Amino acid sequence: MSKPKVFEKPIGAKDYLPHAVGKLRQIENEVLACMRSWGYEQIMTPTMEYYDTVGVASATSDRKLFKLLNNRGTTLVLRSDMTAPIARVVSSLLKEAQFPLRLSYHSNVFRSIEEEAGREAEFFQTGVELVGDASPEADAEVVALAIASLQAAGVERFKIAIGHVGFLNGLFEETLEGYGEAEEELKACLLGRDYVGYRERLRALSLAEPIQRELEGILRLRGGQEICDQALQLSANATAQASIRHLCEMWDVLRAYGVCEHVMIDLTMIGDFGYYTGMTFEGYAADLGFPVANGGRYDNLLKQFGRPAPATGFSLKTTRILELIGDDSSLTEQRILIGYNAAGREAAFDEALRLRDSSDAIVVTEKMDAAARLDALAAAALALDTDGKVLYKGVSFGTFLPFFGEHDGGGAGQ
Amino acid sequence: MSKPKVFEKPIGAKDYLPHAVGKLRQIENEVLACMRSWGYEQIMTPTMEYYDTVGVASATSDRKLFKLLNNRGTTLVLRSDMTAPIARVVSSLLKEAQFPLRLSYHSNVFRSIEEEAGREAEFFQTGVELVGDASPEADAEVVALAIASLQAAGVERFKIAIGHVGFLNGLFEETLEGYGEAEEELKACLLGRDYVGYRERLRALSLAEPIQRELEGILRLRGGQEICDQALQLSANATAQASIRHLCEMWDVLRAYGVCEHVMIDLTMIGDFGYYTGMTFEGYAADLGFPVANGGRYDNLLKQFGRPAPATGFSLKTTRILELIGDDSSLTEQRILIGYNAAGREAAFDEALRLRDSSDAIVVTEKMDAAARLDALAAAALALDTDGKVLYKGVSFGTFLPFFGEHDGGGAGQ
Repeated sequence: MSKPKVFEKPIGAKDYLPHAVGKLRQIENEVLACMRSWGYEQIMTPTMEYYDTVGVASATSDRKLFKLLNNRGTTLVLRSDMTAPIARVVSSLLKEAQFPLRLSYHSNVFRSIEEEAGREAEFFQTGVELVGDASPEADAEVVALAIASLQAAGVERFKIAIGHVGFLNGLFEETLEGYGEAEEELKACLLGRDYVGYRERLRALSLAEPIQRELEGILRLRGGQEICDQALQLSANATAQASIRHLCEMWDVLRAYGVCEHVMIDLTMIGDFGYYTGMTFEGYAADLGFPVANGGRYDNLLKQFGRPAPATGFSLKTTRILELIGDDSSLTEQRILIGYNAAGREAAFDEALRLRDSSDAIVVTEKMDAAARLDALAAAALALDTDGKVLYKGVSFGTFLPFFGEHDGGGAGQ
Repeated sequence: MSKPKVFEKPIGAKDYLPHAVGKLRQIENEVLACMRSWGYEQIMTPTMEYYDTVGVASATSDRKLFKLLNNRGTTLVLRSDMTAPIARVVSSLLKEAQFPLRLSYHSNVFRSIEEEAGREAEFFQTGVELVGDASPEADAEVVALAIASLQAAGVERFKIAIGHVGFLNGLFEETLEGYGEAEEELKACLLGRDYVGYRERLRALSLAEPIQRELEGILRLRGGQEICDQALQLSANATAQASIRHLCEMWDVLRAYGVCEHVMIDLTMIGDFGYYTGMTFEGYAADLGFPVANGGRYDNLLKQFGRPAPATGFSLKTTRILELIGDDSSLTEQRILIGYNAAGREAAFDEALRLRDSSDAIVVTEKMDAAARLDALAAAALALDTDGKVLYKGVSFGTFLPFFGEHDGGGAGQ
């Protein structure tokens, strides 16, 4: 291994400069405030967890976990999501808290990646978990909150696709008994949205014609509430039927929330996470090819931590949303430069303090010798001819106060 | 190794429940806003860095670094402070940016710890770096900002002790030539604030009487500006004299900031960090035995990243401050519970939306069957007799709106 160069950072690691941090903080604050207004309270958990507890319970494949050893030789992981750590907290520190529990988080998570272009090993998620409520109302609440959260983040055009793992499981169970391998292949096609491959594999199985038609039919099960009716007719399997009824009830609740315009049903959708047990959903923004949110019901996770309970939730892919939205924070920012010399120092600091306390202004003070003062004056004079901003030492100031400390009254206004 | 139990988290790792998160977020937001108003712009860097770059340059001793291997077998570290990562960014992404650069951060950092009671392996720091300005004005600015930041965090009674590594280095260089080991021992005593041990070791050296007196004299060099005058007389060493003159000039600037009541000079102070090159300081809160802030000048770090520049900065020990301050956020919090059934669902959601949009209220909606509704009514009736708060499923609500969906007009007000 050659040594990394001094300016290098690890592959998949990212620095955020002030402008990006400003946007990220804006999304974080707006989304967390939205979640809070729905009764979700924020928690934080450690970056490192035991591999044998949270690592094993997480939905991330083992090879994508960052592992390290502590002093005692125990294997730790960097958290790969927040759902498993929150399940641990619900079962330990919060074990006396009554259900339903509404919890939110904003957190960085880690995935060990191959060196693919643009993939990040550390990224931010902002999400909620609603623990202890198995009802369609609870699932609809998290979907409605996902919609409100995307709006709070500034994402304008998006669609939430809702599916249910029980529908495909039930349908395949009914029609593909004994075709275990084929079932996995078909699911892999759906996961990859490879519908051509799905049809080809299906035909290669030479199934009875009605079954063939039934399994081809699911590719059309994407749309509005009418999809539920079609799906109920497609399969008589009890698991599939119960799943569809759950989605129908969710749809009624989502209509009451007034958010159906943002929602579609997509029964071809297979959650990427092995641990989803019911409804799953993904949020797509108009201008991006990958999800900006995903979530679903995971009723089997909590019992791994000793407190069995149904649960549902979602996370926004905050780092992706950051790339999607603009911001206008720098437009409203007021930057003031105060130059001074020793004689005017106290007055300059007093004025800076007054401005910082009485407004949102950003005030930078700088001791200026004669040369620096000439530079500042030249920059201010130049600004009068251009956009009114004073560029001083590479930083743009909207206001350049009269110099503090001279008796000649020099200095530049605006 | 026995397996950790499912509810366990690693030693030194901490969960923050909603109340603690609320306080931590409040400190974070107030302090970052304060730093921003002084012109410091926030940056974020990755949790993992290369051991050979940031790991080696950091001030943390090697055995306290958390290390892990990436896919290619390169050693990574979890950042142990933010100063070295920021130096890397200043020398790479920001290499075209003009000095002085004012940067701020709020970040978790990691230290591998022995299993001592109460020590944390991951904790938060909020701080600034002022890069490219070697003047006493710059050092005074970061001290004044540390004071403003502690006040913004809600710390009411505190003291900043300022020292200078050049003073002791100069003094020892002059008086202890050839006593290398003794010098290290004496410094260790000062670092541990073991003044009795310092005197004992000093006497054991059997130095000439004037030197003995000179080295004992530094124990008295703690106080206000008068200490500078005493120190100037104590040692004629050029390094020591230059250090003291720098502190004198800083004091003048701090007086202009109007913050001298919070500041003392302590020339016995030795920065814990090997890389400080000039002024160092520590902030002590009235009720805590350990520092809540520390900082200083580190003029040799940036050149390790290929862009030599003087720099000064500090970090608040945010996690410690959290333990120190109270908060009143829960007092002003308005929590509203809205019960509904299917018939009243849409009206209930509309009302929830209206309340969330038009106020800071936290609104929880819950579908209630007859039994749940009786529970809620009982809780509300009980509240009328007690403190006016409705305790429902373990959560305290200030307001319980009339039930949505019944025609009998039931439900409980306030």
